[in-house]
Amino acid sequence: MMENILNDNIRAIRWQNNALELLDQRLLPARAEYLRLEHVNDVADAIRDMVVRGAPAIGITAAYGVVIAASARYQQSATSWKQDILDDIHTLAQARPTAVNLFWALDHMKQLFDQIKGDPTKILLDEASDIHRKDIEANHTMGQYGAALIDKSCAVLTHCNTGSLATGGFGTALGVIRQAYKNGNIKQVFADETRPWLQGSRLTAWELSQDRIPVSLIVEGAAAHLLKQGEIGWVIVGADRIAANGDVANKIGTYGLAILARHHNVKFMVAAPTTTIDMAMTSGEKITIEQRPGAEILSFGGQSIYENNMENEGICAWNPAFDITPYSLIDALVTEKGAIVQPTHEKLVALMKND
Amino acid sequence: MMENILNDNIRAIRWQNNALELLDQRLLPARAEYLRLEHVNDVADAIRDMVVRGAPAIGITAAYGVVIAASARYQQSATSWKQDILDDIHTLAQARPTAVNLFWALDHMKQLFDQIKGDPTKILLDEASDIHRKDIEANHTMGQYGAALIDKSCAVLTHCNTGSLATGGFGTALGVIRQAYKNGNIKQVFADETRPWLQGSRLTAWELSQDRIPVSLIVEGAAAHLLKQGEIGWVIVGADRIAANGDVANKIGTYGLAILARHHNVKFMVAAPTTTIDMAMTSGEKITIEQRPGAEILSFGGQSIYENNMENEGICAWNPAFDITPYSLIDALVTEKGAIVQPTHEKLVALMKND
Repeated sequence: MMENILNDNIRAIRWQNNALELLDQRLLPARAEYLRLEHVNDVADAIRDMVVRGAPAIGITAAYGVVIAASARYQQSATSWKQDILDDIHTLAQARPTAVNLFWALDHMKQLFDQIKGDPTKILLDEASDIHRKDIEANHTMGQYGAALIDKSCAVLTHCNTGSLATGGFGTALGVIRQAYKNGNIKQVFADETRPWLQGSRLTAWELSQDRIPVSLIVEGAAAHLLKQGEIGWVIVGADRIAANGDVANKIGTYGLAILARHHNVKFMVAAPTTTIDMAMTSGEKITIEQRPGAEILSFGGQSIYENNMENEGICAWNPAFDITPYSLIDALVTEKGAIVQPTHEKLVALMKND
Repeated sequence: MMENILNDNIRAIRWQNNALELLDQRLLPARAEYLRLEHVNDVADAIRDMVVRGAPAIGITAAYGVVIAASARYQQSATSWKQDILDDIHTLAQARPTAVNLFWALDHMKQLFDQIKGDPTKILLDEASDIHRKDIEANHTMGQYGAALIDKSCAVLTHCNTGSLATGGFGTALGVIRQAYKNGNIKQVFADETRPWLQGSRLTAWELSQDRIPVSLIVEGAAAHLLKQGEIGWVIVGADRIAANGDVANKIGTYGLAILARHHNVKFMVAAPTTTIDMAMTSGEKITIEQRPGAEILSFGGQSIYENNMENEGICAWNPAFDITPYSLIDALVTEKGAIVQPTHEKLVALMKND
């Protein structure tokens, strides 16, 4: 498989010399530096502190985290490591509450323990690498399915970062965009800045510019005015969790874009691997929404607007990290198993049966 | 008139000891410092450099600028000051070429020159003070009309800054909010941060916290999720220009909020003085939208995200400063002459005939 094709040169996660290396996304775009992680608590911290973000990337990182934990626990005790590591898995699971890929990856790795005799490092590393490789493959497949829906040349709008930085590589929504751009059906990508973390301006704009795909930034407030101009054919986003009825939990701001797209008769696409689909979750309304510190809204690249504590000034902030887009506002749900037009529970059940 | 009533303690513009003092809004909320201006060129610079902003506040500042100019020109020459001051008026008019209130105030002051004999300082200062006082009065009247529409206790969402900082005092949309809070019908104000200039987080949150009105900040992407919670009764905004059909030009982001409000069955109110209504402009579609530098999107309090020039990185930005909200999305248009429910051209014509 050729990963470093044109328009796909970034990798956020790599395993090198018996350790996990993560591109520190908090420093982008000022600096592109990899953090080297040799202890599982550092991996959990990196997930919590958003060194790495994006649901698929978090899952892959957690899988490598299990490798690091198993290796260390086995060296401590060859007999009790399978019990001892449960603390580490719990620590990893606690790092971020919304991304289902995290729990999926941890469960997947844990299921291998029974069959392991002796040092678990190699077998687990092979599995984590496999998860990583399959994620990139899934993104390429997803890219094909999604790009096939974009049947005439248009501009697109995307939200947050769903690219190589958010996945094993290539990206979900940005993977669709990469593929459609390669096909000649995207003439321009608009990315909103995605406050408060600025994944759009810091990550998506940087990633697309590195890969020489034309990108224009907007503030989120400009989305409605942009959609009114008539050039945007699709709004394309990723997902952090998809419920069994097709409701989508994704970065705060997604739900508003879906309403604005529908109002302007612009199509709305969600691209995500099937690992993001949680068939046990009957409706998006039941998904826990992570509330993050209000201080995030009043800082930008580490610089605070209010020097004193906001609370001292009587200023609060309401800072949900995700919102829920109901399936009725979604025109296409694209996975590595295929694309669903106008998703419903029945269509999702049928999709999940595909192999 | 009692200006310093509870919940209204901020004044951005004041005349003290023969000079104009402006609260330097570029420094807020870190520091609340007044700049003392004794020369007309300093007044023009202050308008250009956004020491003062908000259309009504700019008009009042320009009127005081004429006082300063006339006083200085009269001391230079008691016989030619009325001719000499035209240069100063031109300088003031050039400071913000798009602000209608600026031209209105300069014309209004100039029309007094013919009747002045001797030192013009007192008569012009009386007139500037009168413009200032009448603006505050209009805001109080508007506040009463708008607050009367909020007939049960709810939370509200506002955009940009339309308060004492943007006007002579009390504010337009924030004036309605101040009055409704005093009436006990607003339990909580949500303010969006209003990218890229952050008028919401830097100015509105500060102004409300100074006046002890509870305020919670959100990112603009959280507006849809907030509206879905069911606690917001009204979205209340100001206007930069209102066309004869009721379409409203206002800070970028307003149009999207109007769509989201309608989607969630939340009422949408625009509050502005009748000087903002341009009956010569038949439709909002004809209003020119100012495009501002893309670099504004990639800076925050003067700190740039991309150290190099964005264009060098292949990153562009689309940065319209305003958008147009069609009259069909507006539930109430509130002015000092009265409130219109579901504005139309006919209702606007009738309103403008009121005295």
